[in-house]
Amino acid sequence: MQYELVNVTYEGDYATITMNNPKRRNALSLKHMEELTAALREVGESTALGVILAGNGPAFCAGHDFADVVDNNLVMVRKLLKVCTTMMDTIQEIPQPVLARVHAVATAAGCQLVATCDLAVASTEATFATPGGKGGWFCTTPMVAVSRNIGRKRALEMLLTGDPIDAQTAADWGLINRVVEPDRLMEEAQRLLEAACRGSYISKGIGKQAYYAQMDLPQQLAYAYAQEVMASTSQLPDAQEGMHSFLEKRRPNFKRP
Amino acid sequence: MQYELVNVTYEGDYATITMNNPKRRNALSLKHMEELTAALREVGESTALGVILAGNGPAFCAGHDFADVVDNNLVMVRKLLKVCTTMMDTIQEIPQPVLARVHAVATAAGCQLVATCDLAVASTEATFATPGGKGGWFCTTPMVAVSRNIGRKRALEMLLTGDPIDAQTAADWGLINRVVEPDRLMEEAQRLLEAACRGSYISKGIGKQAYYAQMDLPQQLAYAYAQEVMASTSQLPDAQEGMHSFLEKRRPNFKRP
Amino acid sequence: MQYELVNVTYEGDYATITMNNPKRRNALSLKHMEELTAALREVGESTALGVILAGNGPAFCAGHDFADVVDNNLVMVRKLLKVCTTMMDTIQEIPQPVLARVHAVATAAGCQLVATCDLAVASTEATFATPGGKGGWFCTTPMVAVSRNIGRKRALEMLLTGDPIDAQTAADWGLINRVVEPDRLMEEAQRLLEAACRGSYISKGIGKQAYYAQMDLPQQLAYAYAQEVMASTSQLPDAQEGMHSFLEKRRPNFKRP
Repeated sequence: MQYELVNVTYEGDYATITMNNPKRRNALSLKHMEELTAALREVGESTALGVILAGNGPAFCAGHDFADVVDNNLVMVRKLLKVCTTMMDTIQEIPQPVLARVHAVATAAGCQLVATCDLAVASTEATFATPGGKGGWFCTTPMVAVSRNIGRKRALEMLLTGDPIDAQTAADWGLINRVVEPDRLMEEAQRLLEAACRGSYISKGIGKQAYYAQMDLPQQLAYAYAQEVMASTSQLPDAQEGMHSFLEKRRPNFKRP
Repeated sequence: MQYELVNVTYEGDYATITMNNPKRRNALSLKHMEELTAALREVGESTALGVILAGNGPAFCAGHDFADVVDNNLVMVRKLLKVCTTMMDTIQEIPQPVLARVHAVATAAGCQLVATCDLAVASTEATFATPGGKGGWFCTTPMVAVSRNIGRKRALEMLLTGDPIDAQTAADWGLINRVVEPDRLMEEAQRLLEAACRGSYISKGIGKQAYYAQMDLPQQLAYAYAQEVMASTSQLPDAQEGMHSFLEKRRPNFKRP
Repeated sequence: MQYELVNVTYEGDYATITMNNPKRRNALSLKHMEELTAALREVGESTALGVILAGNGPAFCAGHDFADVVDNNLVMVRKLLKVCTTMMDTIQEIPQPVLARVHAVATAAGCQLVATCDLAVASTEATFATPGGKGGWFCTTPMVAVSRNIGRKRALEMLLTGDPIDAQTAADWGLINRVVEPDRLMEEAQRLLEAACRGSYISKGIGKQAYYAQMDLPQQLAYAYAQEVMASTSQLPDAQEGMHSFLEKRRPNFKRP
């Protein structure tokens, strides 16, 4: 597929999806979101073991551009937000780990992107905000992702004030995994992604889906679900290979995607 | 309305509700809770943009006074706790941000008050505890709020030991937003409240309600809810004004409450 | 009851359950888990006020031993995991506080044990991991407990990379309560357990059960549940004794188990 607003590149076992509309600060226009969703699905069905989500230009992603929303009617805004949620869901639905590599500002639905990714590494120059709180349109959908990543008082501080937090604060609060100097961002993001992509591709892909599924269940149902997933995946060739290789003290040979 | 145990003051755009029964350490008697609920509702219907909840005297709030409970029968205690939950719910139901300004000890349902407020700033002299764990009556209802603010091991440590944590620990664990020296408490609490009260009053009030509603939903339903709230609020005059003013690079002019 | 793989000792008011199969790194074989569950139930019905869960040998607990799983069919693995979940549930079902005293590595279901206990104290030599992420069999059931103890990004980092975190990181993230030098582990674990076991045994046991019950409920239902537990427990002799002794400024005299 040809994209205009995002780039998809493959290098070795890894894919990188780069939002590439720097003039509009990678604003989440309808077209941008449809391309990003398509890119995620393409990578999801590829043989890549993991994917980095990055942004090109002065911002990682500035969220929805008001120029795409202002004076639109309810039906149009509903559609925009529905496409946005589908994009967010797609990040969590594809089997590979998705790591946000955040080099600069991530606001509103751009901050939601970071919160939605499985992992996130940011540069010290990155900031994170849900600015609707100090404007006229509260960041209600970004809130769903942000409030599932950090504690209540901190989430409400971000949401109500709309003020940005720096990358170190984001790491301290658990919104991202790591913060590094700008010149180490590429390397550290790649390092964490590779660490997250070792082992059986199929086992990990099922595990990722199970993570999000069980988080929304009461503990008793979560265990019923997790037990069955873990029991059935024990029968996979990769699981058997992992156990045999461990017991035989040799390196495992897992199936490639 | 006339209150005996709480003071309600308005200054500029902000209200302050001060628990004012220092001799009983602002104990949550039936009358105290009914007045506090009424005061919150009064402020909720006022033109105030935000509200500070404070305490006068040696304690922020010492929770229920055993003198109000001892030898009472089941029906009476049920009533006391029901009125208490209604008071807590009211904090989260009114549209304005509610910030707990904690100058001293907050225990049991007093600690629950802090956990229930949207935001909290404490002095280094404040402490937080759910002391039922080392007594004869476990802090079961305070637990609901405390366990939704901090991690499991930390919540269980507070609940089972009943020992107080200091304000810095409370900030590290996410139970409060900030800890400052006593002489800076007033200023810092006001500063954070004002930051949390910028922007459209109506948008923020809907956003606050949506925060608490979506926290209790599985992610898929939370998004369905949040999408519809965010889509419908895009049609509010304040949302349109916010977007127009942003695109026109001028200050927005939001409706006053 | 006679155990082969665990030791149960009582000293003063406290019990210690020690996993004692050092050669297999306290692997969670079917027999090991059945004994551990029986030991927990025995202690649960004893007069002990609290219990420490410890491990003997080079590991706290290495989780399931692949030798017990490899080449087993689905029905057998299901049984293994069901017995495992029952063991985890038993930790949370017995009325006494259960504290994990972690002197060394805790991996996979061994890490799940730590996450499942009410409290945990670790030595600086302990590490924590869910290594299935880099193998062939994802740690799906350990995930249920781990993901309920720490934030999302951190849980996914542990689960996807499978890499160990050290004890200080575990404390910072909230997976454990404290980290201390190895020579202070026994003392600090006992100190925290004793602090967690003060007060009324019956009130605390009901409180512990209520903690886990209400965590899985939406806030409104959690309050309905907690109110009724707190109201009904106000009628217990220990609650009345606690209140009377407080008002009379004397030490309470609670019932022994």
